[in-house]
Order: sequence, then C-alpha cells, then structure tokens
Amino acid sequence: MSVTALPELRIDLGERSYPILIGTGLLDDAGLLAGHVPGRDVLIVTNETVGPLYLARVEQGLAGKRVRSVTLPDGERHKTLSVLGRVFDALVEARFNRDACVIALGGGVVGDLAGFAAACYQRGVDFVQVPTTLLAQVDSSVGGKTGVNHPGGKNLIGAFHQPRAVLADLGTLRTLPPRELRAGLAEVIKYGLVTDAGFLAWIESHVQQLLALDMEALAIAMRRSCEIKARIVASDEREQGARALLNLGHTFGHAIENASGYGEWLHGEAVAMGMLLAADMSRRLGYLATEDVDRVRDVLRRAGLPLAAPPIGAAKALELMGMDKKVLAGRIRLVLLRQLGEGIVTGDYPAVALEETLQAHFEGARS
Amino acid sequence: MSVTALPELRIDLGERSYPILIGTGLLDDAGLLAGHVPGRDVLIVTNETVGPLYLARVEQGLAGKRVRSVTLPDGERHKTLSVLGRVFDALVEARFNRDACVIALGGGVVGDLAGFAAACYQRGVDFVQVPTTLLAQVDSSVGGKTGVNHPGGKNLIGAFHQPRAVLADLGTLRTLPPRELRAGLAEVIKYGLVTDAGFLAWIESHVQQLLALDMEALAIAMRRSCEIKARIVASDEREQGARALLNLGHTFGHAIENASGYGEWLHGEAVAMGMLLAADMSRRLGYLATEDVDRVRDVLRRAGLPLAAPPIGAAKALELMGMDKKVLAGRIRLVLLRQLGEGIVTGDYPAVALEETLQAHFEGARS
Repeated sequence: MSVTALPELRIDLGERSYPILIGTGLLDDAGLLAGHVPGRDVLIVTNETVGPLYLARVEQGLAGKRVRSVTLPDGERHKTLSVLGRVFDALVEARFNRDACVIALGGGVVGDLAGFAAACYQRGVDFVQVPTTLLAQVDSSVGGKTGVNHPGGKNLIGAFHQPRAVLADLGTLRTLPPRELRAGLAEVIKYGLVTDAGFLAWIESHVQQLLALDMEALAIAMRRSCEIKARIVASDEREQGARALLNLGHTFGHAIENASGYGEWLHGEAVAMGMLLAADMSRRLGYLATEDVDRVRDVLRRAGLPLAAPPIGAAKALELMGMDKKVLAGRIRLVLLRQLGEGIVTGDYPAVALEETLQAHFEGARS
Repeated sequence: MSVTALPELRIDLGERSYPILIGTGLLDDAGLLAGHVPGRDVLIVTNETVGPLYLARVEQGLAGKRVRSVTLPDGERHKTLSVLGRVFDALVEARFNRDACVIALGGGVVGDLAGFAAACYQRGVDFVQVPTTLLAQVDSSVGGKTGVNHPGGKNLIGAFHQPRAVLADLGTLRTLPPRELRAGLAEVIKYGLVTDAGFLAWIESHVQQLLALDMEALAIAMRRSCEIKARIVASDEREQGARALLNLGHTFGHAIENASGYGEWLHGEAVAMGMLLAADMSRRLGYLATEDVDRVRDVLRRAGLPLAAPPIGAAKALELMGMDKKVLAGRIRLVLLRQLGEGIVTGDYPAVALEETLQAHFEGARS
C-alpha cells in the first residue's frame, strides 16, 4: 500500500513539543511509528471495534519492542474510572515501569482514557496517539487533554498530558462508520466557525467530498484543523484563555450527552447541536444575523448532523450545564460567535438570552 | 491556646512556590488557614480518626467559605482508586468547579489521596495540606507527590501536584498514637542518613525528647527535615535525579508493605527496616563500616522501630522490589549510603550484594 505523508506539523510547547503526522497508509510504514515510540516497553490501548482492524498492523510496526495490548469495550459510556483501572492493571501485569510508553489506538474515548492512564501511571509515562476516527484525528488526539467521565459530568476527572507524537492515518477513515465520520465533521466545522471564516466557506463547498471520503479533501480539512488547534494550544496549553474557544458547542453539548446517557448521542453530534444553540444565542444577543444562523444550520444539515435537541426541558439543560467544567465562580461562561469565524468566551450576557435559547430548543413540542 | 509559629519556610518552584508553616496551635489561629485557601469552595478530606479530633476546628477557620467535607476510612489499605472515587463524588455532589480548593486533613494516606483527587478533578484544582502525623509533617505533605496504591505496588498511580501551602500544627502530634509517632521518626532519621551527618548526630542525642513530645525538639526536627526536603524538591521536582535520594529504604520498604498487606506495617516502619537493609547492603559493598550499620540499627531501635523483616523469602522480596517505581529499564536502582550522611542512587552494584542482603533478612530463621 502506498504511503503519502503531508509535511509534518508540530505543536510548539517547548520541551513538550511534538509532531502531528498526517497521511494515508502511515500505519503500513513499519519504521514510522517505532521511530516515535521512546523506550522498549509498549502498551497498546484499543477497543473491541478498532482492535480487530488495526492492532496487528500496529504491533508489526513495533517489532523488537516488548509490546502488550489491552482491548476495552467500545463507547463513551465506558470512559470511566473503573475501565481506566483495567489499563493500570495491564501496565502492572506487564511489569512496565517509568520508561514505558502507552499507545492509544482508536477514537476519542480510547485516546482520552489511555492518555489519562499514561498521565497517572508511575506519575506519568510517555504516550503516543494513533487516532482512527475523524474526530480524534482533527481534535481530541491533539493538545494533551485526557480524562474520564463522572456520572455527574463529562471529563470531570483528568489531566493535561501531552503525547510524544500524533500519527493520523487517513486511510483508517475507510473503516469508520458514516455516522462517526459525520460526527467528526462537526469539530472541523467548529474550527471554521470559531477562528476562520475562509475555512468555513471551504468546508461549505466541500461537504460532499468529505462525506465521500475524498482523501485530498480530508487531508486539507485535517491539516487546517490541526494547524488551528496547534496554534491555539501552543498559546494556551492549560486553557486559561484562548483555548476555551475550542469548546464552542461543548457546554450545551455536554448537557445533551449527559441527559441522554453517554453514547446515545455521539460527542460530535452533541457538539453540532450545541454549536447551533450557540449560534442561536449569538443571534439573540445581536452578534449574528438570522442568515448567519441559517448558514450554520445549513452546513450542519448537509454534513448529516442532528438539528433538534432532545426534549429534556430548559431547566434540566441549565442544571446539567452548571456542572460543566467551563463554569467560572458559579457563572456559566459560554463560547459564542461574535461573527462567523470569530468566537468569544464570555459570562457577560443577560441570563434571559440563555434561558430563551434553552427554552426554544429543549422544550420539545415548542421547539 | 497559644500560637507559636516558626519562621516560614518556602518551597521554591517558581510560580508553584509555596510556604510551609510550622508551629504549635496553628489550627487555633482562625485567620491563618483561610488566608492560604484560595477561592470560596472548599472540600476538606479527612478520615474517621482525625475528623472527630480536628474537622470542626478547621471548619471554624474557614468561616465565610462554602465548606464541605468527606470522611474516609483510616489506613493505607484504603488508599485506592475506589476510595479516590468517593472524593470525586463529593466534589461533584457539591457542584464544585475549577476554582475549588481541596484541603487534606490527616496523615500521609489522606494527603496523598486528597492531593491526587485535586490533581485530577477538572484536570487540576488547588489544594492545601494540613498534616496531622509526624510522617506527613516532615515528609509526605511537602513536595507534591500524590497518588494511590495498586494491588501490584505502592503509589503506582498518581501525579505531581504541588499544594498551595502546608500548615503543620505540631500540637496535633499530642493526639497521635505512639506507634505512628515512631513511624514518623523513621523519615526524620532518613534525612540525616541521606544528607546530613550533623543532623543524624543531633537526632541520636534527642530521640528520647522526640518520643516524649518535647515540642522544642520536634520543631527543630521538623524544620530541619522540611529544609532538606525543600532544597531537594526545588532542585528536582519530578525526581529525575537527586530527589530519588529521599527514597532511602523505600524500595525495600515497599516490598515489605506489599507482602504484608497494606497497613500491617506502617509506612514509616517499613522504611525503617528498609533503611537498615540499605545500610547492610552498603556495608557489603564496602561503603559503610560495621560500626556504621550498628549506629543505624541503634538509632532505629531507640526510636522503637522494627529491626526484623517479615520472613517472606528473598525471592519474593526481589519480585516485589521489581515492581517498584524506582526501577529503571529493568534494573533495580537503589538508594545506598556512601557514608552516614551521604546517600547515592545507583543501579551499578553486583547482583550478589543485593541477593545476599535479601537472604540475610527475609529468610526468617536464618536472619
């Protein structure tokens, strides 16, 4: 199989800097992965969907190392402290030490959980991300956010722990269920909405190619997404400021995911719905025109993403948003859109604008 | 009650620097603790032994803040991922956010576990150490090592997360069981053995005062211990080098704790036994004279610490040491004594010296 690698991107974080490798067939380049895995002892963390497809190939790419693997159940509802314990068990059973390296082979759940295990095992070992979903390739595998969910909220338990490398093989998207591809597109659209109106316009004109797995279009989308994320993470690794922009749609989205039970809505689907809510609230505050919100709705619709929130009621949605991490001193800080291509993070808005937005979308029949 | 505070010590770690406050009656100085607790939302983590003695007093010192508490079972065998989950539950139930502060009120187990919870909750919130055992006051509360045990080994899961302040009230030692006081003395002796022959000599001549809770002697011992720890932690926060010296006796000790079931041996007792093993091995390597080992044995004996290892067998001890964190690339690095007052970290020794040491102490009847 031919290997096509795009020029290397880097996340610039001083001594914690690392490359993002994007291309097709990267997993077939035997030396590539091994060259980015420090040390001799490697634990591959994957899940029961991705493992049968790619585990053997990754193991082949690590010849000469002492490789173990652990296969977790698939899905967001398994991103728990209890499943995390299984990764620790595997590391201890293998008698791996401080110089071990954990490889996350899978989507966002595997990456977040394996990364958090690497952050905590022996107070921190190396890890490498091998994302196999669009969402993980454009977003969650980059930037060092790791963690697990708590019944009370998403990602409430975690750590900032940067990988040594991210190796994103676009070819793995050929085995991705179409629904997961669409969910990943939500995060691509996010980058356009928050930082880059030109990229948003490009996405609008290439949605069909992206959904049809046109590798050239996917490579452009992925590279631009990672460039934006790399720039923002380098400027604000621990989300004291600008990085919060990348949470557009996430505070609303977490409420949807939590209310529906993790896994009912895919993360990207909930983010898509959350972005529509953020756009609608931005309109109510006079930032966006009605036509802007229509553009947001239209690109999400064409990407096959959901446009109707579950009828959980505005009060419940607000309560669930209150437990979100992005809350500051009791006020709900939200990412809104000053205009298309320019996000803002603010807790400075009339409460009524938030309430009306929630009522318009979460009250079911009335929406 | 009168308040006597020693001059403030600081751990110098740039923006993560923090004070160590040592004195008697500090918990009765209502404003002191509150002044070191940032934010409004506070979770006090304590255990069922310490809580009844000091929780109300600490709560009084936090008037005006939103204070919650969680009381955990007492003992090393409860320093687990599962008990850690109870602290997360309490934080979520209180709806605390990123600006919350966790206070650890208790000994080393409470401090390690509460500190790790603070490291992970919302990817990191503030925490303050209020150590109430000698061991925690001179050692574990200072330096930012946090974590929980795994059935396969001690502290295998954790994080480096520095507190905002350490507030050590010597008065709390009046309620400490004598056995725990003795266990804490082991860590005091450790500082002398590893870095400071003069301090070791001072300890040798003040063991009785320390055991009799002479507050002046305890204050001197605690301040010197914290000075040494502060200097070493400031030079090597993440234990890439010199900090490993502070693990004297710990690799042997962890094997004893693990083999006996956590809690059977107190941590300080296991460290004391481990230091004697390290001294004996240092003698076998020609570093220490027989009289030096006798001095080590004598000061430990006078401090009421155990001098006979459990008869688990040398092979089992070696296996349990192999899972210790201080292993580097498959070799067991040990802290040994080049002379009294000078530790070294090394994996460069004849295997037979380690084997003979283990056989001499872990084979029961033959020891």
